[in-house]
Amino acid sequence: MSARNLVVVFGGAGQLGAAVVEAFNAASFTTVAIDIRENEAATVNLKIDLSATEEEKAAALSAGLAAHVAESGDVVKSVVCVAGGWCGGAIKSSEVFKQTDMMWSRNVSSAIMAGHIAANHLAEDGSLVLTGAQAGLSATPGMIGYGVAKAATIQLVSSLAAEGSGLPANTFVGCIMPQTLDTATNRKAMPDADFSQWTPLATVADLLVNWANGNDRPASGSLTNV
Amino acid sequence: MSARNLVVVFGGAGQLGAAVVEAFNAASFTTVAIDIRENEAATVNLKIDLSATEEEKAAALSAGLAAHVAESGDVVKSVVCVAGGWCGGAIKSSEVFKQTDMMWSRNVSSAIMAGHIAANHLAEDGSLVLTGAQAGLSATPGMIGYGVAKAATIQLVSSLAAEGSGLPANTFVGCIMPQTLDTATNRKAMPDADFSQWTPLATVADLLVNWANGNDRPASGSLTNV
Repeated sequence: MSARNLVVVFGGAGQLGAAVVEAFNAASFTTVAIDIRENEAATVNLKIDLSATEEEKAAALSAGLAAHVAESGDVVKSVVCVAGGWCGGAIKSSEVFKQTDMMWSRNVSSAIMAGHIAANHLAEDGSLVLTGAQAGLSATPGMIGYGVAKAATIQLVSSLAAEGSGLPANTFVGCIMPQTLDTATNRKAMPDADFSQWTPLATVADLLVNWANGNDRPASGSLTNV
Repeated sequence: MSARNLVVVFGGAGQLGAAVVEAFNAASFTTVAIDIRENEAATVNLKIDLSATEEEKAAALSAGLAAHVAESGDVVKSVVCVAGGWCGGAIKSSEVFKQTDMMWSRNVSSAIMAGHIAANHLAEDGSLVLTGAQAGLSATPGMIGYGVAKAATIQLVSSLAAEGSGLPANTFVGCIMPQTLDTATNRKAMPDADFSQWTPLATVADLLVNWANGNDRPASGSLTNV
């Protein structure tokens, strides 16, 4: 089998992640899914060991990715982070500490890990895409942890897109800002909503493939509503 | 001794914190210093147990503060967080994970703790002041952890200032944005700089006393360069 383009998908076993893996498979990419469980549709699965430190996780992922690239000759064209999570919670409750920790870990730590892997493995002219949210740009008194985590992620996007970030030459750094995605979870949570107003997962996934292929990229570091 | 106004100072044993305690002492406030070591000039010291979880720290601080208030009749007029720290570091290094964790813990966790204590103990019309930085509003490719932490803190300020945050009625939420403060540490690090261009610690401390007394408050949630 000849060398192919390769995408790394953080959160590759999640609802959006599975759609992303499917779209990149259809575009003949090698798909590397990084998650706490496997996605059978991915070419390669690198499972996260939740008991490891972030530094250990990074070393394990780097080694796994490098081994596959050495063997296949694949070119790492894109790193995408669609891992994440949501929870509510206000400042007054003593739950706010656990909530904020969880939001930090699920949203910011995964974004930093994706940026780190991109800095060390992405080819030139590649794309790195993180997942922001409107919450990071506005006040979120009822979801303190989620708001600070998304604000942090959006600032990270601007840092990674800046001169001197250490990413390979001409890396495009994108940030998707999901409105309501048409997922099974959202349909269950909001059964009376007009699903036709929601963004299909395939729409987001196709955008990420496009960006990986160097098409229709907005300015690096900018935020894209999806 | 009759009941007095009271201020809680997170980071009360640090360089800026000590100046803040001194200014509030001079304004006849009871000063409660919260830090990992004691500040002898403070009326009351509540030491942080670094081995405790955030939830346990919050419970211990709440109990200590409530006990003092019950005994003295003091009125909690202000909660100030001048705890924090800085470090550099780019995304490519495997040090970025430890750096980001440290910046999160020193800057964001202390700000969330201060907000939580304010929500549960502040009197009406009081002031809550957190410490931001320009780094949170711009790209910081050479200091990834610090940038995301300060972006998170600034978003937290907007959430706490918003309707429905759970803070007492008419709480003023302020955010100081230090330029270069005239501290011993900064003089040592930049011995050739023009110190007269730096902000004296007393200037910042006096501003916080003013705000606590209800004077010269800008719009709640706004950022104030100092």
